[in-house]
Amino acid sequence: MSPWKAAQPGDRLSAVDTPALMLDLDAFERNLQRMADALKGSNVRLRAHAKSHKCPEIALRQVAAGAVGICCQKVSEAAVFVDAGIGDVLITNQVMGEAKLRRLAPLARRSRVGVLVDDPQQVRALAAAAQAGDVTLDVYVEVDVGANRCGVAPGAGAAQLARQIASSAGLRFAGLQCYHGPAQHLRSAQERMMAIAQASEAARVSRQAIVDCGIAVGRITGGGTGTFVHERDSGIFNEIQAGSYVFMDRDYGDNRAGAGDIAFEHALFVRTAVMSRPTAERAVVDAGLKASSVDSGMPRVWQRPELRYVKAADEHGVLATTDAAAVSLGDVLMLVPGHCDPTVNLYDDLVCFRGDRVEALWPIAARGALL
Amino acid sequence: MSPWKAAQPGDRLSAVDTPALMLDLDAFERNLQRMADALKGSNVRLRAHAKSHKCPEIALRQVAAGAVGICCQKVSEAAVFVDAGIGDVLITNQVMGEAKLRRLAPLARRSRVGVLVDDPQQVRALAAAAQAGDVTLDVYVEVDVGANRCGVAPGAGAAQLARQIASSAGLRFAGLQCYHGPAQHLRSAQERMMAIAQASEAARVSRQAIVDCGIAVGRITGGGTGTFVHERDSGIFNEIQAGSYVFMDRDYGDNRAGAGDIAFEHALFVRTAVMSRPTAERAVVDAGLKASSVDSGMPRVWQRPELRYVKAADEHGVLATTDAAAVSLGDVLMLVPGHCDPTVNLYDDLVCFRGDRVEALWPIAARGALL
Repeated sequence: MSPWKAAQPGDRLSAVDTPALMLDLDAFERNLQRMADALKGSNVRLRAHAKSHKCPEIALRQVAAGAVGICCQKVSEAAVFVDAGIGDVLITNQVMGEAKLRRLAPLARRSRVGVLVDDPQQVRALAAAAQAGDVTLDVYVEVDVGANRCGVAPGAGAAQLARQIASSAGLRFAGLQCYHGPAQHLRSAQERMMAIAQASEAARVSRQAIVDCGIAVGRITGGGTGTFVHERDSGIFNEIQAGSYVFMDRDYGDNRAGAGDIAFEHALFVRTAVMSRPTAERAVVDAGLKASSVDSGMPRVWQRPELRYVKAADEHGVLATTDAAAVSLGDVLMLVPGHCDPTVNLYDDLVCFRGDRVEALWPIAARGALL
Repeated sequence: MSPWKAAQPGDRLSAVDTPALMLDLDAFERNLQRMADALKGSNVRLRAHAKSHKCPEIALRQVAAGAVGICCQKVSEAAVFVDAGIGDVLITNQVMGEAKLRRLAPLARRSRVGVLVDDPQQVRALAAAAQAGDVTLDVYVEVDVGANRCGVAPGAGAAQLARQIASSAGLRFAGLQCYHGPAQHLRSAQERMMAIAQASEAARVSRQAIVDCGIAVGRITGGGTGTFVHERDSGIFNEIQAGSYVFMDRDYGDNRAGAGDIAFEHALFVRTAVMSRPTAERAVVDAGLKASSVDSGMPRVWQRPELRYVKAADEHGVLATTDAAAVSLGDVLMLVPGHCDPTVNLYDDLVCFRGDRVEALWPIAARGALL
């Protein structure tokens, strides 16, 4: 990691070194509140997705704002959040291999811990690990509700796994994981609504098949920042897993809002400086693809529509402009990352600011927790 | 970071947790040797690009194999390598801002330290920092030899900056940076050769303009893994900056070799496990875009042409296959990352193996060193 930090609490914003990952605390807190407001009065609870932030300070604030706990993708991430005192942690992934299961089971002594399955072999391995660790694990059947990734087909296959879980010592059948990833990023509100209508129908069919076996389905969970209002209103989901809502990113910002969508604000930025100004049409900043992940496209230059970030190399970002006077060597800009999750994963700290002051550095404690 | 490591020295390969970043030491050492052989007898020396590996253990081995030192992209990276005892470090980038210059100058007391400029303002700031720190900095003029990124136009502009540097107390005019990034990844050998012929001509014109001012041009440096044989044979370059050659990646592997090209081996892999096998045509592995950077395209499944890695999400990698029996739940695969530099930057350690044994864990000490 860098031998020094980009900033210290109390610094003026102008003193923050570049590139740095910046969190606008006012915008972040408004995002927390808007999500709480959006779920108020519904029977749908928030399980905040911590893969987006990997930051215990944020998870604790999400729980304080009403979240039941968090979800994450890896056993090592779960360990970080259990250590931080999060009492309910769901790994929204299949966990394979003895090494991982040996680490997973003890976490369930300190927090409620859940995990997904989509194959009988996983259920057997989880049951063995839970019994060996003398713990009980929440197990969810993942249903492929349209994402074409993991998960069993809706209906009978889900019921078969639920029966296996329910009859396995050490395991508690907790419900269904029905997350539709690609739907989050469909640009039109109508497309997102239709995708979640189909996902809800797949969830309903799967729930019915399980209920028909005499097994109760406690939790139907899924939904992200792009679609959660539809899962909330579906009458079938009772938990949502939004994560990016605390930050927003350029890609989510490119979704066109529908009537009932909640407007979250960009709260996450990469602070960068112009290090080269070789031609009238080109400026080069010190934030490249190791500072802002480009898997979902280029970052946007915040509130500077005359500057386009057009190309990223490891440590160079090329800006195009038609205005020769638009930007000078040494100028500092804020970028809205294309995709918040992998961008956060590049940094050790969030530089949290309010107005013109750095208020805190929050460790991204689960950064690089891949295991 | 992960609260535990993927492996320990002495482990069998089969015990390595996933995902993990693996270095095949035999292949790595052959790559070191092939580079040394390729430069033997030429007057061209290697300055190994450490942005690719960010790993002092590798830098020390590159120097032991004949490299004059390393280059890197950031002041904080340079600090890591100076701390590790590398005696000659060139930051192949413009360094802007007082905070960075205050960190840069003291490094030059312990190692030879160089930096690039492409604007008179940078020269003035570097001179002030060198004088304040009572050190001498090597300064290279960056020439845009076809990359369309940073750098002055070839010729008169380079000479003007060289004169300014040569007359600045605290600065030593060290030569020209003439790196052509996009040329590295041109697929045909003919295109690469022509691009470097043009870059060499741009370097020659710039050198002549400076010599005409009565200033000697010590070093003309540039060239990467994709093109360095052409810089070596140009008669104008006397230093090359290859980095990826120690690892290779899928993107470099996709270059079509020409007659004189050196065959480096894939030595860097992401070890991953199949965590879901939902349909006959689809398998999902536990290495997504936080385990293998996709900025230069998807990873390749090593020595398994029947498996195609087709889609990456944060922590999911989707494989397509036409062979239902090709792969099973729990199977372990090796991926060749699309782009080695940002992939290495996702990990804290390289798991170094030889044959069936883990031999060492090498810290990626400059991982995340963005400042």
